[in-house]
Amino acid sequence: MPEKKIQFSRQKVSYFFEASISQLKEIVPQKKTIIITDQHLFDLHQKKFKGFQTIVLKPGEQYKVQATVDAVIEQLIALKADRQSFLVGVGGGVITDLTGYIASVFMRGIGFGFVPTTLLAMVDASIGGKNGIDVGAYKNMVGTINQPRFLLYDASLLKTLPDGEWRNGFAEIIKHAAIKDVSMFRQLEAASLKHFQKNKAALEALIRRNALIKSKVVQEDEFEKGERRLLNFGHTLAHAIETPYNLPHGHAVSIGMSFAAHLSEELLGFNGFVRLQQLIQQYGLPTEIIFDRQQTFELLTSDKKKDGDHMNFVLLSKVGKALVEKIPLQTIYNYL
Amino acid sequence: MPEKKIQFSRQKVSYFFEASISQLKEIVPQKKTIIITDQHLFDLHQKKFKGFQTIVLKPGEQYKVQATVDAVIEQLIALKADRQSFLVGVGGGVITDLTGYIASVFMRGIGFGFVPTTLLAMVDASIGGKNGIDVGAYKNMVGTINQPRFLLYDASLLKTLPDGEWRNGFAEIIKHAAIKDVSMFRQLEAASLKHFQKNKAALEALIRRNALIKSKVVQEDEFEKGERRLLNFGHTLAHAIETPYNLPHGHAVSIGMSFAAHLSEELLGFNGFVRLQQLIQQYGLPTEIIFDRQQTFELLTSDKKKDGDHMNFVLLSKVGKALVEKIPLQTIYNYL
Ligand SMILES: NC(=O)c1ccc[n+]([C@@H]2O[C@H](COP(=O)([O-])OP(=O)(O)OC[C@H]3O[C@@H](n4cnc5c(N)ncnc54)[C@H](O)[C@@H]3O)[C@@H](O)[C@H]2O)c1
Ligand SMILES: NC(=O)c1ccc[n+]([C@@H]2O[C@H](COP(=O)([O-])OP(=O)(O)OC[C@H]3O[C@@H](n4cnc5c(N)ncnc54)[C@H](O)[C@@H]3O)[C@@H](O)[C@H]2O)c1
Ligand SMILES: [Zn+2]
Ligand SMILES: [Zn+2]
Repeated sequence: MPEKKIQFSRQKVSYFFEASISQLKEIVPQKKTIIITDQHLFDLHQKKFKGFQTIVLKPGEQYKVQATVDAVIEQLIALKADRQSFLVGVGGGVITDLTGYIASVFMRGIGFGFVPTTLLAMVDASIGGKNGIDVGAYKNMVGTINQPRFLLYDASLLKTLPDGEWRNGFAEIIKHAAIKDVSMFRQLEAASLKHFQKNKAALEALIRRNALIKSKVVQEDEFEKGERRLLNFGHTLAHAIETPYNLPHGHAVSIGMSFAAHLSEELLGFNGFVRLQQLIQQYGLPTEIIFDRQQTFELLTSDKKKDGDHMNFVLLSKVGKALVEKIPLQTIYNYL
Repeated sequence: MPEKKIQFSRQKVSYFFEASISQLKEIVPQKKTIIITDQHLFDLHQKKFKGFQTIVLKPGEQYKVQATVDAVIEQLIALKADRQSFLVGVGGGVITDLTGYIASVFMRGIGFGFVPTTLLAMVDASIGGKNGIDVGAYKNMVGTINQPRFLLYDASLLKTLPDGEWRNGFAEIIKHAAIKDVSMFRQLEAASLKHFQKNKAALEALIRRNALIKSKVVQEDEFEKGERRLLNFGHTLAHAIETPYNLPHGHAVSIGMSFAAHLSEELLGFNGFVRLQQLIQQYGLPTEIIFDRQQTFELLTSDKKKDGDHMNFVLLSKVGKALVEKIPLQTIYNYL
């Protein structure tokens, strides 16, 4: 199976693109491997887990919490897992975040790998080594940074993915295009969600391209001092509206990107605002929402990126080129 | 304040020997620092915590568990701790293990340092970056390996330490002498517990010497492939008898060292068996116990170091020189 290795600061990660989950046996010691997945995936793809010990979790962000970690650790002990045991997270970002975290602390760290099964996990969540859990209202409050040994990509798993989850993934793909890759931006403009759902080769190429964009950004800045902040494009506002308005992450990010593009136009003369809005809409994602200006402003500026009466914000200078700018809080308020 | 730096594979640790806890302000940003300690220490040394935010935990191994971690994380959130916050564990090994673990996972890792307050923590538990918690009957089942930024040594804190805890510390000091330092072994033979309790300079020199022995062993083998296993001298049997016979760790280790020395005499012609036994007794520690041979053998051989019908065991070839030998399980049974 073709393998591409990417070296992060402490660990090397093997990427198996255009692969099949049936090849998992070739890369892990089956007897020592324990799969962690969720009930949706287990019900839909049960046969693919045959021959592996499997721990099945309840699906959903509300289970990305310490109580789930505690329960999985109990199960690992019951399965007599030891330092040579190997965990494979097969699922969306919730499962990969949980699996990476559990593997990082069980017996002070055992090996792990991922088979991402949502588009979002394939192009974003499973990449970069961040893992963790939520604590109350605080997302990803507890976790570690620790790379998986491998990422195995099987695009055929996406056949069962609901359309809403496809769109969530496309929000991050559009983000990658906007901040880093004008030629992919054009390609997305010329295509559609349906096109990628029907054309496996195009989909696989798109996944690979996006996985490599995120990997490269993380590689240049694993511990989040510069480059990696560009991935927050659209996310500053997204974090302020996602929970209060109960939005899917991809919707919140899309609205956030649209707002950041508008700011970019005003502050940097960015000329792609309308193009970006059109692309977002083309993939079934929203560009605006009616929200409470004062409350949103407060949540947004309570974000960690604040620094006195200014805050860091990811803007675009042109399509495919992002930068971090320190802008006055007052300016943000005016444009909200 | 004099500072000695030791480079581990990923991190550098500053050692402040012969220091005072009142100097803590000089090395941490006081406003961003949160001390974690236990109720015994807080009651005995309250004044020393003045000016710092402090989280006080219930003392004892039974609180080295996830529920305590959960509670501390809630408190950190309530104190508005962020990525720039810094934790200082002031206490014995329970506090340093907990603090190191919490700091390693809170917001995916914040800075931390230790002020060890038991002899055992000074010469052993606070050194080497291992941290973690117990899960049910399983000690240190969950944790990470992550070095503190600093270790601050204040021997005057030991004035309030109960004699039993002093002896627990001396078990590890005798271990260090037996495996690595014949000249310290002679020095211990010529002295006594009282001597070190009354003579601050001798005590400080002893602490420094032992802290450096453990640091050097860990430095050579942070992820436990060779050298670091020597620190398990006396611990294989200790782990099998400590819980069932409810022994203090230092007692279990002392009995374990005595057994390992006996095995060493039989298998390697080690000639210091009687000397080691005498030294152990001189520091108020036991060399034997009446135990259930069959049960102990089973617990001992369920240890991770087993490999078929042999197991790895740390033995002495002479005083000050240890090595790992693969010995038949039957031989162990015969000498138990
Ligand atoms: N670690 C990181 O760097 C990073 C980056 C971005 C997001 N995340 C995290 O990722 C999570 C979101 O990830 P997600 O959107 O993949 O969520 P998810 O894991 O909750 O998956 C979404 C839903 O799709 C279902 N599903 C998954 N694969 C399927 C398939 N092939 N067929 C049918 N149903 C399937 C799941 O059961 C779930 O109901 C969040 O917790 C977020 O914090 C992490
Ligand atoms: N991380 C490692 O590499 C490592 C190595 C060895 C041991 N450990 C861990 O260390 C723990 C044992 O450490 P410990 O023996 O220091 O136990 P401890 O932290 O429980 O301290 C022992 C007792 O002494 C009290 N105490 C501490 N300092 C005092 C002082 N100055 N005056 C009065 N009372 C004081 C404590 O409140 C407690 O009651 C175990 O959990 C063990 O697993 C870890
Ligand atoms: Zn996102
Ligand atoms: Zn010990």
